[in-house]
Amino acid sequence: MDREKFFKDLSIKNGKKIILLIMDGVGGIPYNGKTALEAAEAKNLNELAKKSSCGRTVPVAIGVTPGSGPAHFSLFGYDPIKYNVGRGILEALGIDVEVAKHDVVARGNFCTIDDNKIVTDRRAGRIPTEKNREIIKLLSENIKEIDGVKITLYSGKEHRFVLKMAHPELSDKITDADPQKEGLPLKYPEPKISGEKEAFTIKIIKKFMDKAVEILKDSHPANGLLLRGFAEYPKIPSMQEIFKLNPAAIANYPMYRGLAKLVGMNVLEVGAEIDDEIETLKREWNNYDYFFVHIKKTDSYGEDGNFENKVKIIKKVDEILPEILSLKPDVIAVTGDHSTPCKMEGHSWHPNPFMIFSDYIIPDAVEKFTERECAKGILGTFNSTDILPLLLANSFKLKKFGA
Amino acid sequence: MDREKFFKDLSIKNGKKIILLIMDGVGGIPYNGKTALEAAEAKNLNELAKKSSCGRTVPVAIGVTPGSGPAHFSLFGYDPIKYNVGRGILEALGIDVEVAKHDVVARGNFCTIDDNKIVTDRRAGRIPTEKNREIIKLLSENIKEIDGVKITLYSGKEHRFVLKMAHPELSDKITDADPQKEGLPLKYPEPKISGEKEAFTIKIIKKFMDKAVEILKDSHPANGLLLRGFAEYPKIPSMQEIFKLNPAAIANYPMYRGLAKLVGMNVLEVGAEIDDEIETLKREWNNYDYFFVHIKKTDSYGEDGNFENKVKIIKKVDEILPEILSLKPDVIAVTGDHSTPCKMEGHSWHPNPFMIFSDYIIPDAVEKFTERECAKGILGTFNSTDILPLLLANSFKLKKFGA
Repeated sequence: MDREKFFKDLSIKNGKKIILLIMDGVGGIPYNGKTALEAAEAKNLNELAKKSSCGRTVPVAIGVTPGSGPAHFSLFGYDPIKYNVGRGILEALGIDVEVAKHDVVARGNFCTIDDNKIVTDRRAGRIPTEKNREIIKLLSENIKEIDGVKITLYSGKEHRFVLKMAHPELSDKITDADPQKEGLPLKYPEPKISGEKEAFTIKIIKKFMDKAVEILKDSHPANGLLLRGFAEYPKIPSMQEIFKLNPAAIANYPMYRGLAKLVGMNVLEVGAEIDDEIETLKREWNNYDYFFVHIKKTDSYGEDGNFENKVKIIKKVDEILPEILSLKPDVIAVTGDHSTPCKMEGHSWHPNPFMIFSDYIIPDAVEKFTERECAKGILGTFNSTDILPLLLANSFKLKKFGA
Repeated sequence: MDREKFFKDLSIKNGKKIILLIMDGVGGIPYNGKTALEAAEAKNLNELAKKSSCGRTVPVAIGVTPGSGPAHFSLFGYDPIKYNVGRGILEALGIDVEVAKHDVVARGNFCTIDDNKIVTDRRAGRIPTEKNREIIKLLSENIKEIDGVKITLYSGKEHRFVLKMAHPELSDKITDADPQKEGLPLKYPEPKISGEKEAFTIKIIKKFMDKAVEILKDSHPANGLLLRGFAEYPKIPSMQEIFKLNPAAIANYPMYRGLAKLVGMNVLEVGAEIDDEIETLKREWNNYDYFFVHIKKTDSYGEDGNFENKVKIIKKVDEILPEILSLKPDVIAVTGDHSTPCKMEGHSWHPNPFMIFSDYIIPDAVEKFTERECAKGILGTFNSTDILPLLLANSFKLKKFGA
């Protein structure tokens, strides 16, 4: 089944409104006996669960822990394996770099090399971010273009940076410029397929690397560089095109704004706090028919193993839920992109608790919006890619298939 | 996985007997708090549910509302997207038109045209069915054949009719003969692919349309015609071939008799009532090993939004269930093809309640044959295409796969 063609044929536009409320990494496993959702005793979320159809969503496949990219592509209705965008793109999106058609981006590390260009520290002693900015400024002033290819550099944290090259004849079908371990010399990329674009791209990168090393010769420990995850701007049919939606993203972290943009969402102006996101939702309510609302900090505190603060963020979302519901969306779903158990201090493979509410759902026996309660829900366990079809169905945005 | 080859290799013939009891559109969503199945308190269905393995079945895909065609192909074990038969075929089956190899059928509308052949009413003022019959008689008497192609016309309701053309050199790879909206002139079909068959088919249809308009010149408001959904007789491997069954269909509505015939079922003589269907089942019990028993009116009353009568039909089925069980089938499954909630007055995407009983199932904790109870069943939520393999397994008609 060609999923995109299938839904493109079935989807229609109407005035009904959808909210997808994502608490990033909200799911977890017990930590002293309770998950963060269980400990939060979130009154409004639980009230909504009582009226909703509930279940559990699998982001990519059973047992598979997804990164933010695949987890969100699933949420947006796209096959996360087909659209596994390059790491360079996600790194760029994560520091708010605009990536466009004809751009190739890579994530870079400053590293330490000796006189024979042997890599002695792949992270250049994790130089302070301040120092990183100085070096990027120096390089940017000295390298603006190579053989007609525009070069732009962006500072990340500590030793990390992003390289962006702009030219219509570039390719991302090249290997990492990275010897993989210390004790080996700096390495140029190699073509993955043999073609003119690949040869041209590699020529540019060699010149760039040589020039950069020359400029950095007195910048020890950050006197060398590694480049990884070369990636072109991915060609992804938009949500407008496939699902006929006029979608908006409300997210205050660059990575998620970037992911939303990749599928054609209108990324709205928003402040840094959860309250700001709700403010934006209210302000823009009349302008779009699909709102992706992204809460980041459930994931951040999960990654930190900070159970108490993860619970606090859930309570904060619980507090603002009535304001969201007061907009009277035709359908609302609440879930996570993936689980981030505090006990594991990282993403995990555990399915997300899920609930959907509209005038056309069957309320089930679930009493609380938690991992273990939602597992009793009428929807069972299903793939996150099926969330969007469910949202469209409940807002009458899918025609009947066949007669 | 080539599903058809897979099951063709595994399936075997034996004497065991299967009943698939379909209550069309039986599933629903609450209507004043209860679904029709919940309101029916169907004693015998609930008794069977207690002894059965239960679950929920998804006809095509999560969120997708199926028409009767795809919903039944799934029930019969076929991929409903691969075998999405043309609208013309279903329209023909719906009014009991025999469609055979080398036939191309289309559904037609009589419409109103002005002197310049501009369509002014796409439905010819919804002429009475009586009038339709007169016009079809007139046309049939005057157009029997065009350039060796046999032409047959069948009256539908109001302004609708079916055109059947019979000739080995016809194609259905042509567009609708339909300007789509009023204010535009009558339109001939165009080829979707460029070939001799398409050119020949279009030549015939042009001549037919011109001739018909000439004949209808005094039949205002039904003085023009639109033709849509051209479709050849679909090539579908039979249930005999793939599943080694000797299948029978007991259905008293033309569309379902037609669908069953498309997959090779023997369509049995039957009266108009549910009791007649049970009579036929008993009479033919020794002659087949698979019985598709189709109850139409759960869907009809769902479409009408007539909750009370939908409940009555469920009670009627409940009443005759013991007679069915008294035949002692080796395996029986009860479900719907798709849901038809009274609240929505139409098909919906909600999965069907499902139960299967044999000597080899695991009874679960489900107490009632309802949407919400079956959701707690041991089978979980699965695709309708997997019902047939389950029926075959429970009647020992599938060999072990691999050693």
